[in-house]
Parts: sequence; structure tokens; C-alpha cells
Amino acid sequence: MLFHVEMTVDLPHDMAPARADELKAQEKAMAQQLQRDGVWRHLWRVAGRYANVSIFDVESPAHLHDVLSRLPLFPYMSMEVTALCRHASSVREGDA
Amino acid sequence: MLFHVEMTVDLPHDMAPARADELKAQEKAMAQQLQRDGVWRHLWRVAGRYANVSIFDVESPAHLHDVLSRLPLFPYMSMEVTALCRHASSVREGDA
Amino acid sequence: MLFHVEMTVDLPHDMAPARADELKAQEKAMAQQLQRDGVWRHLWRVAGRYANVSIFDVESPAHLHDVLSRLPLFPYMSMEVTALCRHASSVREGDA
Amino acid sequence: MLFHVEMTVDLPHDMAPARADELKAQEKAMAQQLQRDGVWRHLWRVAGRYANVSIFDVESPAHLHDVLSRLPLFPYMSMEVTALCRHASSVREGDA
Amino acid sequence: MLFHVEMTVDLPHDMAPARADELKAQEKAMAQQLQRDGVWRHLWRVAGRYANVSIFDVESPAHLHDVLSRLPLFPYMSMEVTALCRHASSVREGDA
Amino acid sequence: MLFHVEMTVDLPHDMAPARADELKAQEKAMAQQLQRDGVWRHLWRVAGRYANVSIFDVESPAHLHDVLSRLPLFPYMSMEVTALCRHASSVREGDA
Amino acid sequence: MLFHVEMTVDLPHDMAPARADELKAQEKAMAQQLQRDGVWRHLWRVAGRYANVSIFDVESPAHLHDVLSRLPLFPYMSMEVTALCRHASSVREGDA
Amino acid sequence: MLFHVEMTVDLPHDMAPARADELKAQEKAMAQQLQRDGVWRHLWRVAGRYANVSIFDVESPAHLHDVLSRLPLFPYMSMEVTALCRHASSVREGDA
Amino acid sequence: MLFHVEMTVDLPHDMAPARADELKAQEKAMAQQLQRDGVWRHLWRVAGRYANVSIFDVESPAHLHDVLSRLPLFPYMSMEVTALCRHASSVREGDA
Amino acid sequence: MLFHVEMTVDLPHDMAPARADELKAQEKAMAQQLQRDGVWRHLWRVAGRYANVSIFDVESPAHLHDVLSRLPLFPYMSMEVTALCRHASSVREGDA
Repeated sequence: MLFHVEMTVDLPHDMAPARADELKAQEKAMAQQLQRDGVWRHLWRVAGRYANVSIFDVESPAHLHDVLSRLPLFPYMSMEVTALCRHASSVREGDA
Repeated sequence: MLFHVEMTVDLPHDMAPARADELKAQEKAMAQQLQRDGVWRHLWRVAGRYANVSIFDVESPAHLHDVLSRLPLFPYMSMEVTALCRHASSVREGDA
Repeated sequence: MLFHVEMTVDLPHDMAPARADELKAQEKAMAQQLQRDGVWRHLWRVAGRYANVSIFDVESPAHLHDVLSRLPLFPYMSMEVTALCRHASSVREGDA
Repeated sequence: MLFHVEMTVDLPHDMAPARADELKAQEKAMAQQLQRDGVWRHLWRVAGRYANVSIFDVESPAHLHDVLSRLPLFPYMSMEVTALCRHASSVREGDA
Repeated sequence: MLFHVEMTVDLPHDMAPARADELKAQEKAMAQQLQRDGVWRHLWRVAGRYANVSIFDVESPAHLHDVLSRLPLFPYMSMEVTALCRHASSVREGDA
Repeated sequence: MLFHVEMTVDLPHDMAPARADELKAQEKAMAQQLQRDGVWRHLWRVAGRYANVSIFDVESPAHLHDVLSRLPLFPYMSMEVTALCRHASSVREGDA
Repeated sequence: MLFHVEMTVDLPHDMAPARADELKAQEKAMAQQLQRDGVWRHLWRVAGRYANVSIFDVESPAHLHDVLSRLPLFPYMSMEVTALCRHASSVREGDA
Repeated sequence: MLFHVEMTVDLPHDMAPARADELKAQEKAMAQQLQRDGVWRHLWRVAGRYANVSIFDVESPAHLHDVLSRLPLFPYMSMEVTALCRHASSVREGDA
Repeated sequence: MLFHVEMTVDLPHDMAPARADELKAQEKAMAQQLQRDGVWRHLWRVAGRYANVSIFDVESPAHLHDVLSRLPLFPYMSMEVTALCRHASSVREGDA
Repeated sequence: MLFHVEMTVDLPHDMAPARADELKAQEKAMAQQLQRDGVWRHLWRVAGRYANVSIFDVESPAHLHDVLSRLPLFPYMSMEVTALCRHASSVREGDA
């Protein structure tokens, strides 16, 4: 099932640059693995903001929470979660 | 280029049901044609609300406005438009 | 899976009382049937407002949308939907 | 009587991890004791956020405040409290 | 137990003046009876607005809802309800 | 004349506990003196929050500001002030 | 004593123009009389909006409410009231 | 001097189409005349909304109000006005 | 021309008291000079908050920005600026 | 294509003045270069706030994000991005 998640990152200004780089690299690796696993179905950058819009394909809200709360940047992100379902006018089979 | 649009429909309670049905049928036909044309790339229902989350692939903001303002339900919808771009961590070629 | 839904009812002031009574009776019957079916797990009135807080146990967001959008008062309600999952500190088996 | 409480946790980023772990362990122990006592009737995680939705069964608003303000994480949580009452359409005896 | 309620009245502009006068007279009579009964403990006008701030002394949230929802102007008012309790610094016995 | 004030306290997490205790004790002493003086007419705790709802009986807005700005916790509180007046439906002489 | 009031006018679109003109003429006459009486001390138009910012010099919140609620456009205005007092840095005697 | 104005149009759904067309034609004519006069310096459509972002070059706030309040669609628009000035980093002489 | 400015001060809690006193004294001196110059026409304290409501009489938005951004407390204040103009119902010559 | 961007700067109060000056100088140099390149088409100061309103002329949302995220003050700014298009009533060729 699909969930729409908007994530906004807010790193503390006094975080050491090396620590920030480390977290971002870990976040990227995990994001790419989750995409290859088919869990993180879409990932787009919001133009002009340190934020993304994502579509997750998970088995349950518990699965979604498990995935999101393990993200390395989770403690520094605010999340807005919206449950999606198939639209009666959709012609795209993959967007079930 | 991609734009994220959240549309919320608010039909007046005193609209004649036949008129509402007519508008919805026209909206559905146009939405499906735009999907087949590759312009309305994704269309999902927001669970529990008369609203959708959509991704449009257009040539410009002018193209987007032209598409959205021709929708039969446009006078009865509020729209939130967000410009998207490719995320550095995306592995999905189609989400350029 | 569980979803938290807050529903606020806003009937037009010019709706005929008989029509309002009819809708409310239909809503009550459907709400009670859904409770007996185990789908509408909890239903509480918000003190002082024509609103409720509910917990739904459904198979998917699509199932939730199907249930909510069939409610007789759906066109007159605003809905806030929140996906829930089991809390690591919960001791109550039924709140899975 | 029942109160609906949404709690959002916001730990300072510079809190020592050992202190955070200690507070979370104390919070969990107290939450479980309150559940066993029948005071904290329901406890659900909000998917994707460090937050919960809870139902408390207390003797009075003073009792509720006493319980909430003793929670180890209370200084780091924002709370939204809503008074509930039995819904005329409820068929569940326990949700009095 | 005490609840703080802020009520804002919004009468439709097309309500017949005689109907509005009738509702206001009924509201006043009920408000005064509830004050004499000790249920509506305080009632103040908000300067410059068709709104009031009130303190209710009721047996439960259900009692509060029963009282508020019977008010003749209830369909035309928005309500904000806040549960109160005795403040540790209060010296006023009556504000228990 | 009467003013309704909602005060929310937000102490910095890095304030020394002894300093916090000292400020709270000073605040309590001043609050009780002002109550005995008839200036701070009502003081209630908001259930579940480090906040209060208060009614002040002062000679003028200047008097109110003088009282509030001398409170030991004033630098750590946000205040919402609302001017009240006697309600035409009030039967309580003291709530002039 | 001084109160700052921001008034925003929202006339129903279906009000008869003659009725609107009548109300505006009555409002103007009363506003000018209150200015000559020294009660409505300042009155400015907000550029680009059907709204004003005003300073009232009244004897009490009750006096303010009495003045505002008698304005012919009162049923069609939303009001934001703020209590003012003399600023310690003010050099203008009249702004007491 | 320059003012930034965001205008959002909200025509009543029951306005006769001929009346709406008449107002829009008058609005367009006046907007184009004001542009030729150098008063309405920039005018852009907000993509996806019946709204515009505009820059006005006027002699004073009074001049701005006079221009805006004479627009045929003024009774149906909400306006947000922001005063602008030359930016120290601007290299564009015309944006004084 | 006139601008309405609401300023809210938020000094960091860890600012040295001597530095805060110094800034406040400089702010007061500049505020009084600007009042004597006729630029800062009115200055009122908002009751209960570290905030003021002010009316400035300046030559342009650029002049206003120059004045406000030179205030010693400017880095610690949030500002809301509203352009004013003469109200058609005003009888006070000075409020042009 | 054109995007409207409102940028608000919020430098940490504990940033060293030399570092702030360095960042501002770099920001100014880059802003001026982008203006000369025709990318940053307009740049205005918002009167009374450390904020600007800007119009960017870019090739795509990705181009916009690339430009904005390279600004030296980007980590200290909040951005609101709005996609613009030509208005049917515009007579100004350059505002395509």
C-alpha cells in the first residue's frame, strides 16, 4: 500500500560538518537500497528547499514507521504522512 | 519538468446532482486523456478526503496552468502546486 | 491495520430538518453495522462539538476510503486521517 | 472519564544519549504500569513521527494532569488534550 | 470539575430577525437557569466580538456535552473546550 | 476591569534546576499575594500543559502590564490577553 | 484607556446596493461623531483592503464593547482587539 | 515607490456567467491601461490558481489603495500588500 | 506617508544582562530621537507582551526600512509592516 | 521560465560577526553575478524585514534548485517558491 511522505530536514547549525556528511552519506545509501527493494517507490527534491516528496510502498503503517524511524536523518526531519489509494480515474496499473 | 499538485474538490451543496455527475464524468475523461498523453503522470486518491495528489510532467509553468485551468472541476478545486526536481539519491531513471 | 480519524460535521443551515434527520439515522445505522463488523473499532464524541474521534481497523487505505466515502454524512464532513501502528510500550494485545 | 491526548516528543539534540535512554526506559516503565492500572487505556504510535495518540481513563482533569505531568518525558513533550464522551451511535460498552 | 469554553456565535445573515430574537431569548433564559443551577459558573463577554468566555462546573465531559449541545444557539456557535484543574498556587477555595 | 490571560511557560532545558526552583517559588509567592490583593482573581491550571488560564481585575491595561511584566517567570512565558466585560446574560454580581 | 482595533468588513455579495450604501452612510456618521467625542481617537484605512486600524480611548472594556457593537456594520465585521498602554520610551504626552 | 500585491479572485458560484465575463473584460481593460500608465509595473499569473502576483509603482499608499479599490473585481478579491524597497545587492536600475 | 508596525522583541535567554541593558538604553534613545524628529509618530506598549504597536511617518518604504533596520534591537525583533492611508471617514487632519 | 521566491534570512545570534560579514559579502557577489547573467531577474528588499522578494528566470525547477542551494546564506534562509506564468492581461513583453 502507498503512503505519501513529505520530509523536511533541519540540521542543527552547530553540527560538525564531518558528522553531517557522514549522516547524509548513510541516508543516501539507505535511501538507494530502499528504492532498489521497491519500498521507497518515488523520491523527488522540492525545488528550493532541503526537503523531499516521497511515495512509499509498504505492507502496513507499522512497516512504514519501521522504515522511516531507521533513517539516519530521522531525528532531524519533520514528516507529514498521508495515506493514498488508487484513484478511480487512474489509468496507470502500477499506481495501485 | 515535474510539478506536484494537491487538488481538493469542494462542490456547492446546492449543485444539481445531474450537473455534478456531468462535471465528474468530463473530469474523468480529461484526466484519463492527460494520463495517456503522459502529462498527468501520477494520480492518487487521498484516503478519506475528496482530494488527490498528482504529479504532472509539463513543458513549463504556463503549460501546467493551461492544463489545470481547463479541468472541468477547476472552479470548484483549491490547488497547491510545488515544483519538483530530481533528487540526488534517486535511482529511478523515470523520475527525472 | 489501524487509522485514527477525526470527523467534523457541518450541515448546511438551510437543509430541511427531515432530510437532516434521515441522513443522521442512516449514518447511525451504518456506523453501528461497521462497529459490529469490527471495522469501526472505536467511536467517541468530542465534548462540546459536532465531531467524533474514531479508530478504524481496515485492510488498506483503499478499504478505509471505501468505508468513509460511503457514509451518508460524508459530503458534509471534514476528515483528518492518521495512520497508527503498535506502540513499543503498549501492553494491550488488541491494539496491534 | 475519557480524554484523548496526542503527545509529541522533542528531545534536545544535545542531550547525552545515556540520559535519553534512561528517560525513555523510565517512560516505558511508567506507561506500562499506567496501562496495567487501567488509567492509560490505549496507546498507539503515530506512523512516521515521534508521537503517540492515547486514551486516558481518569477520575477528573486534575487526575489527568497529575498523571501526565509525572511522566519522565513530560518536559520534552507537547500535549493536546481533548475531552471525550460516549457517542450516541457507539455499540461498544467499554467505550463509555 | 471545571471546563473552560470559548463560544463564538455566527448567525447566518439571512436568518429572519424574529427567529434570531427568539433564539437569543431562549439562549439567555437557559444560560441564566444554568448559572442559577451552578453549572455555568462564569460567563463573560469578549470585548468587541459576538463571543463569550465561560467556566462550566459539571460532573463529566458527557455532562458538559449534554449542556452545550442543548443550547438554542449551539448550531450557530463554534466551541473551544479546555479541561481545567486546580492550580498549585491558587488560594481561592471555590476554584477547586 | 477584567482581563483574561492565558500564560504558557517554556523554561530553557539548560536552566539550572536550582534556578528554576527559585523562580517558581518566587512566582508562586507573588501569585498568591496578587490573589490576596484581589488583582489575580482566578487562576486555573490547564490540564496536561505547563500553562494557566487566569482572570485579572485591574484598573487599566497599564496596571495589567505592570503586574504581568513583574512576574518572575515573565521572560519565559508567552501571554495571550483578552479584554472581558459583563455579559448581558450573567446573573453573577461579582463578574462585573 | 486605549485599545487597538483592526476591523475587516465582509459584506455579503447578495446585499442590495441601496442597503449597503445606507449602512455605510450610517457607519460614517457614527464614526465621525465618535471621533468628535474623542472616543475613536485614530482611524486609518489599510491600503488595498476593506479594513481599518483604529485606536479607541474608552473608560473600560465594557465601554469599548458598547461602542463597537452599536456600529451599523458590526454584524459584517471581524474585530481584533488589543489592549495598549503607555510605552516607557514614548515622548508624546497625548498617547498616555 | 513599489508595492508587491498578491491578488486571489473568488467569484461566487452563482454569479451569472454574463456578469462574470463583463467584470473580467473590464478588469482586463483597466489592468492594461494601468500597465501602459506605468502604475501596474509587473503582472504574473500564479500557475494553477486564479491569482496573480503584481508589482505596483505608486506615489503613496493612498495612491495604491485608490488604484486597487477601483478594480472591477476588487469586491471579489483578497489582497496581500507588501511594501518593497531597493535591495543593496540589486544591480537593476529600474528596480529602484 | 504612514506605516503601521508591530514589533515583538525576543532576546536570547543567554544574552548577558549588561549587554541587554545597553541595547535597551540605545533603543530608547533612538526611539525618542525619532519621535522628536516626527518620524516615529506613535508608540504604544502591547499590554502583557514585550511588544509595541507603532505608527511611522516616512518618505518612502526605503526610508522606513532604513529607520527600522538601524534600531539596536532590530536583530532581535520580528516586524509586521502594514501600509496605511487616510480613511474617508476620518475627521482628524493630522492623520493624513 | 519564471519563479517567484521569497527568502527570509535567520542568522544564529551566536554566529561570529566576521563569519556573518563574510557570508553576506559572498552572497552579495553571487547575487550580483546571477543578476548580470539574467538568472536572478528581480531582487527587492521587503521593508522592515531581513527578507527579499525575487523573480528568477531559469531553465527548469532543477536549475532553480541548483542556483538557490548554492547561495552562501542558503543554510540560514527559509524559501517560499511559487511558479509563475504569463498573465493574459499583461502588456509587458519581457514578463513572458
